[in-house]
Amino acid sequence: MTDRSGNFRESTVKNRMNYHFASRIEHTPRSFIREILKLTEEPGMISFAGGLPNPGLFPVEGLQNAARDVLKEDGPQVLQYATTEGYRPLREYIARFYYEKHNISLSPDNILITNGSQQCLDLVGKVLINPGDPVAIERPGYLGAIQAFSLYEPSFRGVTLAGDGPDPLALERVIRDFSPVMFYGVPNFQNPSGITYSEPARRKLAGIMEGTGTLYIEDDAYGELRFIGEPVPPVYSYMPDQVILTGSFSKIIAPGLRMGWMAAPGPVYTALVTAKQATDLHSNYLAQRIIHRFLTDNDVSRHIDTIKDAYRRQRDVMVKTIEEAFPKEVTFTRPEGGMFLWVTLPERMSAMDLFHRAIREQVAFVPGDPFYTDGGGSNSMRLNFSNSDEETIVEGITRLSQLIVSMVEER
Amino acid sequence: MTDRSGNFRESTVKNRMNYHFASRIEHTPRSFIREILKLTEEPGMISFAGGLPNPGLFPVEGLQNAARDVLKEDGPQVLQYATTEGYRPLREYIARFYYEKHNISLSPDNILITNGSQQCLDLVGKVLINPGDPVAIERPGYLGAIQAFSLYEPSFRGVTLAGDGPDPLALERVIRDFSPVMFYGVPNFQNPSGITYSEPARRKLAGIMEGTGTLYIEDDAYGELRFIGEPVPPVYSYMPDQVILTGSFSKIIAPGLRMGWMAAPGPVYTALVTAKQATDLHSNYLAQRIIHRFLTDNDVSRHIDTIKDAYRRQRDVMVKTIEEAFPKEVTFTRPEGGMFLWVTLPERMSAMDLFHRAIREQVAFVPGDPFYTDGGGSNSMRLNFSNSDEETIVEGITRLSQLIVSMVEER
Repeated sequence: MTDRSGNFRESTVKNRMNYHFASRIEHTPRSFIREILKLTEEPGMISFAGGLPNPGLFPVEGLQNAARDVLKEDGPQVLQYATTEGYRPLREYIARFYYEKHNISLSPDNILITNGSQQCLDLVGKVLINPGDPVAIERPGYLGAIQAFSLYEPSFRGVTLAGDGPDPLALERVIRDFSPVMFYGVPNFQNPSGITYSEPARRKLAGIMEGTGTLYIEDDAYGELRFIGEPVPPVYSYMPDQVILTGSFSKIIAPGLRMGWMAAPGPVYTALVTAKQATDLHSNYLAQRIIHRFLTDNDVSRHIDTIKDAYRRQRDVMVKTIEEAFPKEVTFTRPEGGMFLWVTLPERMSAMDLFHRAIREQVAFVPGDPFYTDGGGSNSMRLNFSNSDEETIVEGITRLSQLIVSMVEER
Repeated sequence: MTDRSGNFRESTVKNRMNYHFASRIEHTPRSFIREILKLTEEPGMISFAGGLPNPGLFPVEGLQNAARDVLKEDGPQVLQYATTEGYRPLREYIARFYYEKHNISLSPDNILITNGSQQCLDLVGKVLINPGDPVAIERPGYLGAIQAFSLYEPSFRGVTLAGDGPDPLALERVIRDFSPVMFYGVPNFQNPSGITYSEPARRKLAGIMEGTGTLYIEDDAYGELRFIGEPVPPVYSYMPDQVILTGSFSKIIAPGLRMGWMAAPGPVYTALVTAKQATDLHSNYLAQRIIHRFLTDNDVSRHIDTIKDAYRRQRDVMVKTIEEAFPKEVTFTRPEGGMFLWVTLPERMSAMDLFHRAIREQVAFVPGDPFYTDGGGSNSMRLNFSNSDEETIVEGITRLSQLIVSMVEER
């Protein structure tokens, strides 16, 4: 297997053309994380920037066996074109999972298999957003959702997050004043803030939203990664005809397979399937079969417990080191699960400024600004704890603390 | 592994909601092929309707070995998030392929890995089409492209296909009168017609298009499946800065992996990568690695020769049986490759009428209407020859011929 690069003549493309683009693409931000990829991949760099799971926890052997078995037993069929909705036994597995874990009744007929939960956001945008439509999003909000929806040129309306969920007054105001087509949120271990909606906050949200024309897009990419406290019912269970629920195998199996799913009420589901078909016919069928085989042949709960144990230890070390090392003026969230925590520096201190200093000390993170659709957040930052071992976390947080201390002293 | 279905309580979704959809989804047709799927899957049905490769020709063992090797040697990495552009050695392989096979210089830096070539069409639509923009498309045109572009609400302009490529006068008129943002075509063994653009037709097309603002979208999903005659240079080679070239592993390896690619001039490429990132971050990375490993470890030319031998035999039997059995008033194309041929019934004879009669005789095909964006084609039909063995082809064509003969006599 040769990976030889080079040996290509210079491209003959001369670009005499004046290319014209659709306005939607000009409104779509590129990911900050992607822009700094070259920096974060430098040898010696400690990166709290990305959102990568720990690859040491991927179930390589189980997936290897699953791939071998489905190809051996059903080779031609697992390599053929398949239905847009997805492999039915996999959709049945997902429906059973919601029933057994959350006592939620979802029909497999309302579940669509997607290319990771990121594609759910693209399909939601395709099906729901006309240009200029108001779209409510958490403040701070998930960067990938801002990107995905931006392609459909909405007018974003931020709903500030309090410590236990969306600020009810802010949500009420946005819904009343703008009647958004949807409110997008990540109720468990939110990206970027690490915040989880409490049960009363979910009930309150449903109380505010029910009967309005606004759909709630419940992105539950991290839900299985709870390592502290008790699970809270999905927002879906409070108003099932008003929620599109999305999930992902990226955090509990592996992200490279790009496998996620979404569940939606009938009429919305039909539109989503039409959009999915026009977009890429169906998701990788071999990967669907591998994942289904892996899920049925292995003790998945035990596998997830292993991930949670590791992440909890990493989260505990990060929290403890921050508590000990960061100045008292700095506040931060203590997530009950997931992969991120959120740091708020003293007012008027710039996280972007800290970022540039930190890069020189070989520590990377994501400053808060890109998570805000309407400005703000410039004194906040996201730290990932899932992709660094405990020793590295201590070292990286210690370096950050020295920089923050000196920035506080400069003021 | 249990595939038990059922055991789900009825969905609690009551649909009291009035769901509002983006206008783009209401403009997107569902696939006729999909709509008739239940019919074509009935036992005993002879189907010339779909566009499926012959699954007996999938390189199951080679892919099984490739999957085993990449997971064994590089497990954690092949399961992790990856770059949006795609696995670089795979992009290098594709660039080398174009250089060695077509003497075309393409940089891997201009190649993006996609979820089959269908996703190329979605990304092209995202990046190039504003609502109402004129988009030129072959007449008849590929159904999947009509669907994919419809999401971006263009105004389609049909360019009638002659026997050896787009009718130059029709193309000239559409470009002059509408300045379309793009002209989408399938120059090799077109879907649905089986027509291939001749070399002079390609030169003529470039002569008409060069210097205009219209990009040519060259969908070459079938290019490797030429079993008669000599290869013709891609349209790309005549005007490289004005062509987006798309390709697919679906027809030469397997479609279930949903792997394709596109090559585009720099500024367009940059926009496509932004769109791809917002859409699904990147294509299934394990599948990219499996395909790359398969390509480098196997004699791919020989594998493709096996496919071509089988399809040529099937094509020959279909052509010969039609020549012998169909009435003289019926004309049809004799494709030099690919998977389809195109039948034109006498004027005013309805292929949809024939379709309904044929279904009763357990033969399915696709009537011509859905391949036209502006009406027409009602006396034409598409027949697939790649997914039926020779005996089945003789039997199915014979049944069709009896129906056509009796319809001709009824007139």
